[in-house]
Amino acid sequence: MNTAVAAFSLTEVKELIDARLSDYCKVRTLSAQQVNDRYALLWSTIGSVFEAGGKRLRPYILLATFDAYAPDTDIETVMPAALAQEMIHVSMLIHDDIIDRDTIRYGVKSVSGQYHDNYTPYIEDVSERTHMTHSSALLAGDVLISDSYRLLSRVDRPPEAVTQAITILSNAVFDVVGGELLDTESSFIPDLKLTAETVARYKTAGYSFISPLTMGATLAGASQEQIVLLHRLGETIGIAYQLKDDLLGVFGDSDTTGKSTSSDIREGKMTVLIEQFQQCGTPAQQEKFFALFHNANITDDEVSEARTILLESGAKVRVDERINELHHTANDIISLLEINDSAKQAFNELLELCITRNS
Amino acid sequence: MNTAVAAFSLTEVKELIDARLSDYCKVRTLSAQQVNDRYALLWSTIGSVFEAGGKRLRPYILLATFDAYAPDTDIETVMPAALAQEMIHVSMLIHDDIIDRDTIRYGVKSVSGQYHDNYTPYIEDVSERTHMTHSSALLAGDVLISDSYRLLSRVDRPPEAVTQAITILSNAVFDVVGGELLDTESSFIPDLKLTAETVARYKTAGYSFISPLTMGATLAGASQEQIVLLHRLGETIGIAYQLKDDLLGVFGDSDTTGKSTSSDIREGKMTVLIEQFQQCGTPAQQEKFFALFHNANITDDEVSEARTILLESGAKVRVDERINELHHTANDIISLLEINDSAKQAFNELLELCITRNS
Repeated sequence: MNTAVAAFSLTEVKELIDARLSDYCKVRTLSAQQVNDRYALLWSTIGSVFEAGGKRLRPYILLATFDAYAPDTDIETVMPAALAQEMIHVSMLIHDDIIDRDTIRYGVKSVSGQYHDNYTPYIEDVSERTHMTHSSALLAGDVLISDSYRLLSRVDRPPEAVTQAITILSNAVFDVVGGELLDTESSFIPDLKLTAETVARYKTAGYSFISPLTMGATLAGASQEQIVLLHRLGETIGIAYQLKDDLLGVFGDSDTTGKSTSSDIREGKMTVLIEQFQQCGTPAQQEKFFALFHNANITDDEVSEARTILLESGAKVRVDERINELHHTANDIISLLEINDSAKQAFNELLELCITRNS
Repeated sequence: MNTAVAAFSLTEVKELIDARLSDYCKVRTLSAQQVNDRYALLWSTIGSVFEAGGKRLRPYILLATFDAYAPDTDIETVMPAALAQEMIHVSMLIHDDIIDRDTIRYGVKSVSGQYHDNYTPYIEDVSERTHMTHSSALLAGDVLISDSYRLLSRVDRPPEAVTQAITILSNAVFDVVGGELLDTESSFIPDLKLTAETVARYKTAGYSFISPLTMGATLAGASQEQIVLLHRLGETIGIAYQLKDDLLGVFGDSDTTGKSTSSDIREGKMTVLIEQFQQCGTPAQQEKFFALFHNANITDDEVSEARTILLESGAKVRVDERINELHHTANDIISLLEINDSAKQAFNELLELCITRNS
């Protein structure tokens, strides 16, 4: 990858990050092997999750932002920060799969899913096995949160920028923990006095967009003014991304998204889609829908029925419109960034990708 | 605290660390409040765990080691590292309580315990409530792992020492995750090809002793040779500490230890005590004991019976002897440290405390 060319593609970054993450997990697996075979298995399972998929959007955003503000500096200097972005993301996915009791991620078995199989010969009782499965996935996520900082500390940039990057990552984790908590609690605590967009801001925008954008710029030595703009840009794209995610979580194709398209309805996730439906659904639609929503034993046919109601109510169109609005705001912010045109172009393409994706 | 006096007491350090942790949690609670009241509750619950107890042994070890190798430098410069040691410890306790399904810690309700009460009005089904309780405790531990690094990055020492400190902390988390995994899996996977001392090395010695000892010395600029000695010292004290913990987990007084003295027997923890019993218990003792061991429905009377068998078999005496052996090794290592006599005295007292404690 030649940093003299300002723009590099997401595909190129994915290839590079995939190779580095694979190497990282191999080294960690060898170290774990020195403890015990079973610890090596935890690390090779983590490795399989990295291999299973992921667009490597967060590393791309970090590298693209760094390159936009420091076009003459080799992006290799901040590669550990790019890896840290992906690692913290995967740690959160692994823990999210515990909370949501999902066993599939990127279309293959998640850490929880793989451990459930692995423990089957040893633990007959399913609820006991699930507990042990969750315990192992918990530990896998823990070591990845920790290793994200290990990586980040190795960035080859001025010490005060690295310290600032660590603060940015910890702000992101602070946000995502709050967002996840609210997301979970909103399914069983009524009247939390929050909007689904607030949840999206904390659950997604913080660590997926604000963190890589502001960290990339910070490591590049960008001005505080530019970092404030990037913070707002991250908030805007992040919320749009989560709204799109909420739509895919109900209307997506699970073969393409690689995750369940029934669990949000089953678990009763209070997404923006549901909020809009509460405003625009007819009383009859609402009665029918909420009889199906948040029901652990919902059938596939009933999920389809719930989906149709959301569509017919106009709730989906309302969410699409809100995504468009956020799209325009983000375009406006990008136009204000003090970066060259090809970098602006890269940001606009990224934005497009976040909003039009089907996975 | 005057650093001109080489030795400071554990009580003094506890007071200082308690106050700093309390302030930290207050600031975080205020930030969380800006997200939502429910997130502020998570942080005030975390604050209550810090307030509930803890000897602050790890911060003390870090500060004492730093002071031993850099007696002329204000310990205030490394205070964030001392706080990070306690924070990573508490994050592991919170996650350990999920894995062990314990709800009591330091004699009061743990995060899991407090959230179980909090969710009672909202979730009737106990297993569903427990899942949600564990989800919240999972998130609480996550943000503390992350914030440990945030703190550590703020240490006012040369950048390369701070980077090295971050590596040390991540090695410690790597170890403890492996140790916890093996500890858990050994209760249901037969023949893991490991000794309970290996588990103790990874589960306890790494983050509780090796990390604060080597980090304190690294931040003080000690020689590599001294750090290698401290690494061995940490291993030795750490294993002894865990053996003592295993004894307290069965023979301790739960009012003093602040944790259950039946869960190790109930959960079937393969401690050194059980390993020794396998070697020295008579066939009749073994048959009787293993009929009680690892049984979720064990009664209090049966726990007492199991305890008596372990005592009568001589297994407890064997563990006591092994602790003494480690005690002597640690004394020998301390005598080799290039620190002044009062610092050596402080290390010896610490060692004594770890081994003779009853909580």
